[in-house]
Amino acid sequence: MNNECIFCKIIKGEIPSYKVYEDDKVLAFLDISPVNPGHTLLIPKEHYENTLETPVEILQHMTEVVKKIVPGILKAVDADSWNLGVNNGATAGQVVFHTHWHIMPRFANDGHGLWKGKEYEEGKAEKIINKIKANL
Amino acid sequence: MNNECIFCKIIKGEIPSYKVYEDDKVLAFLDISPVNPGHTLLIPKEHYENTLETPVEILQHMTEVVKKIVPGILKAVDADSWNLGVNNGATAGQVVFHTHWHIMPRFANDGHGLWKGKEYEEGKAEKIINKIKANL
Repeated sequence: MNNECIFCKIIKGEIPSYKVYEDDKVLAFLDISPVNPGHTLLIPKEHYENTLETPVEILQHMTEVVKKIVPGILKAVDADSWNLGVNNGATAGQVVFHTHWHIMPRFANDGHGLWKGKEYEEGKAEKIINKIKANL
Repeated sequence: MNNECIFCKIIKGEIPSYKVYEDDKVLAFLDISPVNPGHTLLIPKEHYENTLETPVEILQHMTEVVKKIVPGILKAVDADSWNLGVNNGATAGQVVFHTHWHIMPRFANDGHGLWKGKEYEEGKAEKIINKIKANL
């Protein structure tokens, strides 16, 4: 637990939340500022700053819980599609530094778009792949 | 394997790819149209349509591989932040119907923004949470 962390306060019940699912290791609750109805945050009960800092056993349990709760979330808001989004680090849009995974139901024409990619310039992909392999 | 699936063809080597990581269960390779350099796709070698269709053991292995390969990807492109993104269903932006997780390194001022949320209207969150609980 981190006394300054808003998600730790939610876990302790010091801040109220709409709980979707809870067990001894994780809590899932409605995002209070949802991109779509049913937008849910899944967090470990222990305080870890981000996904890489979180033990693999906890991440694997979170994965299992995603699979368990998504069908019910989608039924509740009558959606058939969803995005999983995880922002790790301030530059990636992380605001609360307690690991959290966004489960976001999607609807046709909801206005949310994915990022556009563009192809690598000649030779660039080779350089990157060599650097990655040197760092694995 | 699905003979029509482009990711199955990549796994079989019929379509070339820049491989980041490979084991008996999964393959990670560079997205050819990256939102940022180092953008990597992690896929199971067996053909499953999306995350919910994929056995939990495979998803848990994918989770472990994310933790294993992200540090090397970030070092290779000199990034300290990253997003995990998974699009499940056409409405959520899924184009290839073979489970794939996007690992996207991020840089300051790279122009990629997160979706904006807005608060629930009075009473709406209660209704949704009750429906979710009825469906879990």
